[in-house]
Amino acid sequence: MIETDALIIGAGPVGLYQAFQLGLLGLRCHIIDALPHVGGQCAELYPDKPIYDIPGIPVCTGLELIERLQQQILPFAPPLHLGHLVNGLAPQPNGWRVTTDQGLNIVAKVVVIAAGVGAFVPKTLKIEGADRHAGRQLHYRMEDPSRFVGQRITVLGGDELALDWAVRLTEQPVGHQPQSVDLLYRRDVLSATPELLSRFENLRHKKRITQHVGQPTRLVSVESGQMGSIDYMTPDGHLQTLAADTVLAATGLSPKLGPIANWGLVLDHKQLVVNPATCETAHVGLFAVGDVITYPGKKKLIACGFHECVMTAYAVAEIVIPGQTGPLQYTTSSALLQQRLELGI
Amino acid sequence: MIETDALIIGAGPVGLYQAFQLGLLGLRCHIIDALPHVGGQCAELYPDKPIYDIPGIPVCTGLELIERLQQQILPFAPPLHLGHLVNGLAPQPNGWRVTTDQGLNIVAKVVVIAAGVGAFVPKTLKIEGADRHAGRQLHYRMEDPSRFVGQRITVLGGDELALDWAVRLTEQPVGHQPQSVDLLYRRDVLSATPELLSRFENLRHKKRITQHVGQPTRLVSVESGQMGSIDYMTPDGHLQTLAADTVLAATGLSPKLGPIANWGLVLDHKQLVVNPATCETAHVGLFAVGDVITYPGKKKLIACGFHECVMTAYAVAEIVIPGQTGPLQYTTSSALLQQRLELGI
Repeated sequence: MIETDALIIGAGPVGLYQAFQLGLLGLRCHIIDALPHVGGQCAELYPDKPIYDIPGIPVCTGLELIERLQQQILPFAPPLHLGHLVNGLAPQPNGWRVTTDQGLNIVAKVVVIAAGVGAFVPKTLKIEGADRHAGRQLHYRMEDPSRFVGQRITVLGGDELALDWAVRLTEQPVGHQPQSVDLLYRRDVLSATPELLSRFENLRHKKRITQHVGQPTRLVSVESGQMGSIDYMTPDGHLQTLAADTVLAATGLSPKLGPIANWGLVLDHKQLVVNPATCETAHVGLFAVGDVITYPGKKKLIACGFHECVMTAYAVAEIVIPGQTGPLQYTTSSALLQQRLELGI
Repeated sequence: MIETDALIIGAGPVGLYQAFQLGLLGLRCHIIDALPHVGGQCAELYPDKPIYDIPGIPVCTGLELIERLQQQILPFAPPLHLGHLVNGLAPQPNGWRVTTDQGLNIVAKVVVIAAGVGAFVPKTLKIEGADRHAGRQLHYRMEDPSRFVGQRITVLGGDELALDWAVRLTEQPVGHQPQSVDLLYRRDVLSATPELLSRFENLRHKKRITQHVGQPTRLVSVESGQMGSIDYMTPDGHLQTLAADTVLAATGLSPKLGPIANWGLVLDHKQLVVNPATCETAHVGLFAVGDVITYPGKKKLIACGFHECVMTAYAVAEIVIPGQTGPLQYTTSSALLQQRLELGI
């Protein structure tokens, strides 16, 4: 079990800046995100698109903004727990207990939800048989590529993640290899880094991966109830069948408020209602910032989320170190803040 | 008389970003500042000092932040009225009328006060005779260096501004020159750009400027009531007298809320009280942002001022173009916003 002052749920731009503001006030925090990397919407929705309205930054891409924020929080080095979906959030004396689908167990004096539009979770397949086989022969993550020994695997998708899975499965050492690896995607154009595309092409050329173009239509069960094959429609309208013991679907991510909606919190139009003076929710010690919140006049802009991090940090400090924050200090002039920033001044 | 949608009083970082947010919403604005340059506190109080807490900018000086914001507002090119101290602010049908000490007369549908700690105005001399001669033989600005023909001028101060005045007076063309130029400063160390220091040294070497070290103690009147000389105390405690028809004092600036305090607005501990959902004051169409305002939880940080600019911009739009702002748009994806940013996309 981990114990900390504050736990931030969400590693998007606002979650990262929250860690900075808490660090300036001398508070320790951890950060959790469902994605395997930091950046939230900036990384998932517009990594290469320019943003023009961050104050003082005339233009930067989503990824550049995240890199800048990562650099800014370096002095505080908050531990990151990536690829963790929060599945439990419960009050307890003097704080909150948070658990994740990966078995993490954190007790924090306060929790700050910076979950944006929700957790980015895999899009589920909406075809016949998908529900029946999900979690058994249909998976949305590939945690251990060595567990599919001797199986016929179909990977769905055409991006970096799908190709990474197909290549890693095929490159398993002898004795851990699947029987066959097929890649099924609706287009014949794949998108990944040149290095990964080259490895993929090499394996395809050696006929160790077979590439198919088409749209999945059905997961077909055999008599035992297990899955036996996957049907798909080719671009010219022919129905094809591909024998498969396991389907690994890398068909994209979409944000789902789901986990937050299930935590029993006070919501207004799927937004957490907060007091704008503190960003505290109706639940003591539970704060929220960024696109996931609402208050009178709230605008879903990153510049507003940053301000909310400031309001939250001071309110959190009043809980964690009551009466000790003193008057507002400035990084330009305060020796204490500069020491926390490890500037060695 | 100038007519505009919005008039921003204060060209510090928050005033500049206010112009950006108004521009994004398609509103025209003008900016007024008492200083002869943009930047406000960033330029006056910490131009070369590092700031560490601007979101996404791990470190920048005050001047660098201002340069970044100037670049960001370029697409909207708001007219700047620098060196204007606001001396009148009065409601009128459908807006506000603002006048300045330089005779500017602006009618705006809304006014946004971004005045920080107040207007930076010259520190007045606190010595005997100063009040009596102020505005006649004692001046805190030098507007026209050619009007001192044949006079004995003493410039007070040792920084860029004082040296600039002394050099410009001395370098007047023949026929417009003063009789003599003296510089009086409490230290013998002067601070200015190398280029200006070199020009000053050159004129001093030619005995066209005389430098004195000491602290002014009194402006001495002659029988006519005019000023005849200035007394000063040297570092080793001797009282000296310098003949002078005119004294030009460049003895620094200090922020004064004065003008704002005199406008008859609702203040709380010298702060303008605003509704945090809109940043509107108790006066319809009069908004305020940044260090000059207060609301529950207000923190005097630049990051919070930026957010207040967003809140203000949307509330201003509801007054200037009611019902036309529509849903929130993003610079990353909105063709309209990108067109306003003159990105030619």
